[in-house]
Amino acid sequence: MEKIIVNNDNKFSVKGFGASGDLINGKTLKEMDVVREKPGTDEVLIEVLYCGVCHSDIHQVNNDWKNTRYPCVPGHEVIGKIIETGSGVSDFQKDQIVGVGCMIDSCQTCESCRNGEEQLCLGEHGATMTYNGYFNDPESDYNTFGGYSSHIVVNKEFLLTLSEKLVHSSAAPILCAGITTYSPLKRAGIKEGSKVAIVGIGGLGHMAVQIAKAMGANVTAVTTKKEKREEALKLGADQVLVSDNEKDMAAHELAFDFILITIPYGFDINLYVPLLGVKGSLVSVGLLGDYDKPLNNMEVAKFNRSVGGSLIGGIKETQEVLDFCAEHGIAPEVEMIRIEDINEAFDKIKNEEVRFRYVIDMAK
Amino acid sequence: MEKIIVNNDNKFSVKGFGASGDLINGKTLKEMDVVREKPGTDEVLIEVLYCGVCHSDIHQVNNDWKNTRYPCVPGHEVIGKIIETGSGVSDFQKDQIVGVGCMIDSCQTCESCRNGEEQLCLGEHGATMTYNGYFNDPESDYNTFGGYSSHIVVNKEFLLTLSEKLVHSSAAPILCAGITTYSPLKRAGIKEGSKVAIVGIGGLGHMAVQIAKAMGANVTAVTTKKEKREEALKLGADQVLVSDNEKDMAAHELAFDFILITIPYGFDINLYVPLLGVKGSLVSVGLLGDYDKPLNNMEVAKFNRSVGGSLIGGIKETQEVLDFCAEHGIAPEVEMIRIEDINEAFDKIKNEEVRFRYVIDMAK
Repeated sequence: MEKIIVNNDNKFSVKGFGASGDLINGKTLKEMDVVREKPGTDEVLIEVLYCGVCHSDIHQVNNDWKNTRYPCVPGHEVIGKIIETGSGVSDFQKDQIVGVGCMIDSCQTCESCRNGEEQLCLGEHGATMTYNGYFNDPESDYNTFGGYSSHIVVNKEFLLTLSEKLVHSSAAPILCAGITTYSPLKRAGIKEGSKVAIVGIGGLGHMAVQIAKAMGANVTAVTTKKEKREEALKLGADQVLVSDNEKDMAAHELAFDFILITIPYGFDINLYVPLLGVKGSLVSVGLLGDYDKPLNNMEVAKFNRSVGGSLIGGIKETQEVLDFCAEHGIAPEVEMIRIEDINEAFDKIKNEEVRFRYVIDMAK
Repeated sequence: MEKIIVNNDNKFSVKGFGASGDLINGKTLKEMDVVREKPGTDEVLIEVLYCGVCHSDIHQVNNDWKNTRYPCVPGHEVIGKIIETGSGVSDFQKDQIVGVGCMIDSCQTCESCRNGEEQLCLGEHGATMTYNGYFNDPESDYNTFGGYSSHIVVNKEFLLTLSEKLVHSSAAPILCAGITTYSPLKRAGIKEGSKVAIVGIGGLGHMAVQIAKAMGANVTAVTTKKEKREEALKLGADQVLVSDNEKDMAAHELAFDFILITIPYGFDINLYVPLLGVKGSLVSVGLLGDYDKPLNNMEVAKFNRSVGGSLIGGIKETQEVLDFCAEHGIAPEVEMIRIEDINEAFDKIKNEEVRFRYVIDMAK
């Protein structure tokens, strides 16, 4: 099968899987041609080898955030091989295996970008996300297409290198699930002896448990599912708290310095605030919408607590978490799938049947 | 009039104004006898000279927080004269003018108390509030009665000293409005050049504007009321933002490092989150209940923002803010009233007619 078809001087088509916004035979995603611009001076062309399947991919193709541009080709946990480099690229070579995360470009001049926090880019349109970019500019018809495709073109500043200690087939989820949880844990100053709760033991949460543990924390995995107890302990959690047990939850009042919540849909934040200790903070990374109920500020104020959010991390920090995982032997637990099985995988993720992350083997 | 009536070996009655939980001729508060325990070894008996009127007083007598024990005698911004000292009191003398804030006792042994943060006391019942204590123990019939009375008995560890630079009649509101706003501003590290917004220019807000300004911040007063514009500028605000002007609000997206919200009733927190800059935080100190609407975590997460709460401050920090106000010439703007006019004052506070704090002159 010819994977790359040259369209004209500046464009070419590759094979991918994307959503048109309509269901096709009950399925969200279908095979489609993906039109890309040829790599510029500072860009590389990558053959995608593996791509993680993130809950955000589902939110985006379903237009849950009311900002989806179709066709939508998801995928922002990409491991691939460089097959062509622009003339301005010297730090990366043809045939090198690299990673691509949630962003492929940003203004690179604002204060956030200069601080290595491109995800917080203050440029007119913010960072260019790997798919469905530009995020903040509904006027533009520009769109980016992610890693559910045979090839992708990326600016050299947004490439990640992979330690030899990382296994390529399973490293992909570090590029979103890893950085999304590492960044707030690091910013919270988690260290030896910190009391940390990780709420939601899925794709993000199972990485967070391992990372917090490697930072030296005493880690409590908080889940609604009793059957995840053993799995959480295997991941390194010191104990498990089942969140629909009101008595256990009440017994953990004031118990944690920091809580990281990875639940990817609306929930009642007031269930978790009382678990925070004096001046404790919680950060919610899975939800990018409204909580289910209004926050009660009495519970927040009475112990000077705070409720925050966090969005992925910068490129420098993404490199840092890749290296951190390599150094500490942390690996996402993945199930490999074929791209043809992506619709089924989406259903299983929604039903919380995946343990813990699907990775598409694009070579298959 | 005999102000103190000895009841028995350990108790005595003084005159005060309190709520019984029922309206008397349409009025919430009426004159009543207040029964107090005689000062113990480490306590002092104080004749109340001045007592500030706080919005919390209204919430508490109306049982807005569902924890009011009647009779409820409010008042936690007390300036008074010591008229008797227990045998264990050596740092304070008879006839000395002192301050009493929101707390009169705490466990004094927990980590919070050892850190000088008695308001976050982790003892079984938390700190003993100046009125309606014990806050956290609905089982106990113990109750405390505040400064709307001729005399009050207070543990020596909870007495504040007053710089000679402070005017006694107007210093009272520093003891709640001052510390409640000073503490989160200080914790947020406000310094020269910090961009700070103060939302709600009432009793708390008018102190916050002055304090943030004295800390070196560029201060924006945010109010719904155009007629407060001039007053806010007089208090030292660098500019005023009228919050029901959607265009002005939109123009201030990402504008502030820190926002302190002093609104004492439910409101939509989502109006203020977008005004926060990258990694900015807001703290809400007026509301001790639910926000009006669920928090949108997209707005919080996308710039790593946070939403916090804060409750008064510790005794050490309360002394600090009294000294800070003396040093910087900061004074609450007060209107003196007689205790007989307290019901009318409550109505005017609810209607936002006060500029900016009522203080009861108990000598009248």
